[in-house]
Amino acid sequence: MSKKNILIIGTYDDWDRIPMETSYEAHFMAPDDDPFAIPLATREKIEAIAFRGHSFLGCAKMDAFPNLGMIANLGVGYDTIDVAHAKIRSIKVSNTPDVLTDDVADLAVGMMIAKMRNITGAHEWVSSGNWGRKGDFGLQRKVTGKRVGIAGLGRIGEAVARRLIAFNMEIHYYARSPKNHVSWHYHDDIADLAGAVDILFVTLTGGPATKGIVTRQAIEALGPNGLFINVSRGTTVDEGALLDALESGALGGAALDVYLNEPYIDPRFMQLNNVLLQPHQSSGTFETRQTMGKLQRANLAAYFAGEPLPTQVV
Amino acid sequence: MSKKNILIIGTYDDWDRIPMETSYEAHFMAPDDDPFAIPLATREKIEAIAFRGHSFLGCAKMDAFPNLGMIANLGVGYDTIDVAHAKIRSIKVSNTPDVLTDDVADLAVGMMIAKMRNITGAHEWVSSGNWGRKGDFGLQRKVTGKRVGIAGLGRIGEAVARRLIAFNMEIHYYARSPKNHVSWHYHDDIADLAGAVDILFVTLTGGPATKGIVTRQAIEALGPNGLFINVSRGTTVDEGALLDALESGALGGAALDVYLNEPYIDPRFMQLNNVLLQPHQSSGTFETRQTMGKLQRANLAAYFAGEPLPTQVV
Repeated sequence: MSKKNILIIGTYDDWDRIPMETSYEAHFMAPDDDPFAIPLATREKIEAIAFRGHSFLGCAKMDAFPNLGMIANLGVGYDTIDVAHAKIRSIKVSNTPDVLTDDVADLAVGMMIAKMRNITGAHEWVSSGNWGRKGDFGLQRKVTGKRVGIAGLGRIGEAVARRLIAFNMEIHYYARSPKNHVSWHYHDDIADLAGAVDILFVTLTGGPATKGIVTRQAIEALGPNGLFINVSRGTTVDEGALLDALESGALGGAALDVYLNEPYIDPRFMQLNNVLLQPHQSSGTFETRQTMGKLQRANLAAYFAGEPLPTQVV
Repeated sequence: MSKKNILIIGTYDDWDRIPMETSYEAHFMAPDDDPFAIPLATREKIEAIAFRGHSFLGCAKMDAFPNLGMIANLGVGYDTIDVAHAKIRSIKVSNTPDVLTDDVADLAVGMMIAKMRNITGAHEWVSSGNWGRKGDFGLQRKVTGKRVGIAGLGRIGEAVARRLIAFNMEIHYYARSPKNHVSWHYHDDIADLAGAVDILFVTLTGGPATKGIVTRQAIEALGPNGLFINVSRGTTVDEGALLDALESGALGGAALDVYLNEPYIDPRFMQLNNVLLQPHQSSGTFETRQTMGKLQRANLAAYFAGEPLPTQVV
């Protein structure tokens, strides 16, 4: 039996690329390439796409592949895939949920402590020899016991909250409706949540429904001693308002893993001294990326076997 | 009533120095100064020392003050105070336990995540513009679910362990004897403990009893994928062996808050790229330092009032 044809979009590590090349006739495309540059005869053979990255996979790109039946996304967030169009064309879409929840929560908590205790600045203080030359590093902020807000209490938000309980924190959250299985403080408005806490985590899903949901008003409610932490998507926050508040001191500080226009982020971020900046690495561990790749391939294999996808989105 | 005379050793913030100057006739000495440079008439008046810092307060220094009756240490560790000599002379010694436990545990956990996820390197990657110019940051190591060892299960060690449970870690520990109130895996030998885990925290008390207790053998048992974290005292570890193992790769990495000869630490540390270095800032938060200062002054006040010291060591 001849191998099925798939299109691989984005850069993959060997441990993911080689198994796909072994199982399929693999074609490759960079995220921003024009799919119509691929010959029609090849495009017609493509039955599935292994998708990775935060470039847009819209209707025009999908329609370059008339026999496309499935898109296997590497990652939990699929906000850059036009799922409405995929649904119209009966193209199945899968993602890789759950397996990265712990990594994102670990990094979110690590970013909080690193920012509050200035671990990055302290490392530089020692490495540069300043400790011996100039003396004690300045005092920082205590972590344990603070009031914390979580905007978006899905799998990741709850994993963050469960870690923060071990730091004796008072947990507040925003969600579309109160969650019955937790006893934390519910707020039906993000600005109201921000006003009630010292630290605000954003763990919402991306996409149109949450675009700009963290408003200028919410950022200002968090205030000059507040810490803003975003591990969701850059789209969830009014980024101009965030930058304004960080520059003016209306917001105390931020620890960010996500931005608009990654990786070409607003250069205003680089001028700030009250931010901790991470390169969207929340699921960036060897262990989890390998698990994500296996789940992506399990979805591809199920599709070609005519079986239900393990983690289907639409 | 005339004010009592105290000697203040080390640098204090205004919020600590001013209340002491208000309550007492305060004299000042830098940690490495010769106390005999102070006129005898003054030395005879000193009844208590407010001590801070990691310089040695030995018998010679104590005996420069014939009427010394009390040493109030700012900090939980009093390994640089010759308590045996203090006891012989019936000089009371107090410290500031408990109030800094959370801060030390917070920093220890933050150092673990920061090192495993390379938060410091990732921040530099974004700040320098490398993300846009050179692309993705490398993959790091997953935190959740690792096996962790805690050498020294006192207040701080237990506070670290209780936080790590929220990261679904398997807890092992070393102590002089098993602790009945916990169900974690006990090891009666630190090298044995190191061989059983991915990450080793040292939270032992300093002083002669634990000098070099983390041996070359223990460091090598932790191994090339192991992470060594020290928030206790530099004296607890064979530092030469630690540096050798970090340089050769026999040990995977280290996150350190304490060293020999602080702040003039061994320059070999600055040449390593597998370490996270912190400037002994484990209790370095505004909130906790103010609480520590209050407790130090409460001990001084109790001494002069002839009352039991709140947190007496000897």
